Amino acid sequence: MLPKKNIVHLPVYQPGKPIEEVKKELGLKEVTKLASNENPFGCSPKAKEAILAEMDQISLYPDGASQSLTAAIAQEYSLETNQIIFGAGSDEIILMLARAFLEPGDENIMATHTFPQYKHNAEIEGATSIEVPLKEGTHDLDAMLAKVTAKTKIIWICNPNNPTGTMLTHDEIQSFMKRVSPQVLVVLDEAYAEYNVSGLYPDGLQLLKEHANIILLRTFSKIYGLASLRIGYGIGRAEVIRSVNQVREPFNTTRFAQAAALAAFKDTQFIDDCRKANAIGIAYLTEQFTRLGFSYYPAHGNFVMVDVQRPAALVFDGLLRKGIIIRGGHMLGFPTSIRVTVGSQAQNELFIQMLEQVIVDVTVQA
Amino acid sequence: MLPKKNIVHLPVYQPGKPIEEVKKELGLKEVTKLASNENPFGCSPKAKEAILAEMDQISLYPDGASQSLTAAIAQEYSLETNQIIFGAGSDEIILMLARAFLEPGDENIMATHTFPQYKHNAEIEGATSIEVPLKEGTHDLDAMLAKVTAKTKIIWICNPNNPTGTMLTHDEIQSFMKRVSPQVLVVLDEAYAEYNVSGLYPDGLQLLKEHANIILLRTFSKIYGLASLRIGYGIGRAEVIRSVNQVREPFNTTRFAQAAALAAFKDTQFIDDCRKANAIGIAYLTEQFTRLGFSYYPAHGNFVMVDVQRPAALVFDGLLRKGIIIRGGHMLGFPTSIRVTVGSQAQNELFIQMLEQVIVDVTVQA
Repeated sequence: MLPKKNIVHLPVYQPGKPIEEVKKELGLKEVTKLASNENPFGCSPKAKEAILAEMDQISLYPDGASQSLTAAIAQEYSLETNQIIFGAGSDEIILMLARAFLEPGDENIMATHTFPQYKHNAEIEGATSIEVPLKEGTHDLDAMLAKVTAKTKIIWICNPNNPTGTMLTHDEIQSFMKRVSPQVLVVLDEAYAEYNVSGLYPDGLQLLKEHANIILLRTFSKIYGLASLRIGYGIGRAEVIRSVNQVREPFNTTRFAQAAALAAFKDTQFIDDCRKANAIGIAYLTEQFTRLGFSYYPAHGNFVMVDVQRPAALVFDGLLRKGIIIRGGHMLGFPTSIRVTVGSQAQNELFIQMLEQVIVDVTVQA
Repeated sequence: MLPKKNIVHLPVYQPGKPIEEVKKELGLKEVTKLASNENPFGCSPKAKEAILAEMDQISLYPDGASQSLTAAIAQEYSLETNQIIFGAGSDEIILMLARAFLEPGDENIMATHTFPQYKHNAEIEGATSIEVPLKEGTHDLDAMLAKVTAKTKIIWICNPNNPTGTMLTHDEIQSFMKRVSPQVLVVLDEAYAEYNVSGLYPDGLQLLKEHANIILLRTFSKIYGLASLRIGYGIGRAEVIRSVNQVREPFNTTRFAQAAALAAFKDTQFIDDCRKANAIGIAYLTEQFTRLGFSYYPAHGNFVMVDVQRPAALVFDGLLRKGIIIRGGHMLGFPTSIRVTVGSQAQNELFIQMLEQVIVDVTVQA
């Protein structure tokens, strides 16, 4: 009754305290959560309508193949329907990629400080993870290329990178794809793609036309505001998607998630509005950080990683006591930084106000 | 870019035609689906209320540890909270068990005709599946025991068995547990447990007290009527649940699923009513089958496997043209049988009426 040797050291997910409990413990009336890169504007009202329209079908299994949603995305991006796969968040696509492609003896490459589920899933499969340090907070593609061996099965690229927010441009990814072996599957995790306003963001669909060994990951958890519903998708060549489908559970997304995602995908006005508000929020936050003398990584998602020059755990704790939850960099490999989600303008202003109070109390770290 | 060798032969899920399309193609006004063992009475109205109460939190990640739901189930069954784990349906618990415990070279044992996800997941992990024929539609526990070797990691027991509906009693499972090696994890899949009215159904919680190597699987997809929401759970000793948790995605169930499951779990009146109606439905259907001269397996879930003495594919097709969808036994290893879900009384009567018409047209198979 022993589990696999390669999983026994893995951490068990430790749940955060429910907000209600935090409020009670610290005697707070309001708590502002800027910790999980959720959309501060919620989701499209059309997604809610779509959920209400499904209320009489709760007892019926969902469409395992998400046919309506697949058709809508295929049409929008001029893809065949067999080039798209859905997961319970892009998290589950990562799981399925690891489960379909990785086995003991295989290698996979990712950045040292990036979304942790790549390494976590590779470890479960018994594959060896080669972690390549970021260069100024950005994926070091040359160094990653240099680590490719005959055993390399997957390279994971989170773009914009979580937790740093930095971006690789179209030209950088294109140049990388020309040099990487076509035997290596390159996963471009574009969870924050829709927030990008740089004009330099990779055109993943174009890259996919040029290279069979790419899969793009997208999610409805971020700008679409459907994090609670767990739905994301992958886009690749039919033969790659087929392999992922072979390890997919028959009913891996819910009826509500499919319906809400379809409505949210079509409501482009809501997405445009959120993108604009986010860009304004980033401009505000980074201006304030500059005023406070803090450096930050160029932010291309809906969050900013800022060096507050103090122990992150103390700043996290100080903010928590004032009712602001952010992500402390000490948990992410950045001991004097914090990662803050871009909120509404009111939330951003409140955060800056509280941060200014907290940094008075917490000594600068040389 | 090659996937693992052990997955390339696996079938890709083929979606059924949406009901609307079936209606259009066959010119039908109404379609009655008795194919997926869903609850014909829907779900508790309290589950719907719980969903509506979560509508303002769609953009927020769910509680990854399902703390409220875990607490309610732990209290009801006098368990510690670390003895319970949730999945996107019990399907995902099966996936996680395979992923945590099985690797190439391992063996696992299941019935030849049982829920297909056991074998499917074991194959993905590269484990060898030993399939043991049913005996009169029931798990042959002696034959399964005889197949245990030093390599055996898991024995899967679906009780009541899908697709036959047969049941193993408490005494049978208890005797089996006393003889099986404590090194083998025994998975008791009790998806249909709440429908049981036999008085002989295993007390899984008692067995778990006696044996550390048991995990019970339960689901909210059947009697609770929440199939579209994808939520089920496992109950085991803390050390087993810990291993499963190590391969669990952090946010594997949705906010709506957790809220609806909690409300549905508490509405015991709804469950009692569904159980009673189901027992009446089984009595009606089996009486009619007897009248028609058809034999059937003892039905302990919410479905009946009946031998209609004709090619199942033809009977399936005939019923479909009359607007009744059932599961043809030809897909399940029973070439002259069909599996029909117990519906409402009106649905059951309509099904019998249409079946009588169809069998006139389809020749008896000797």
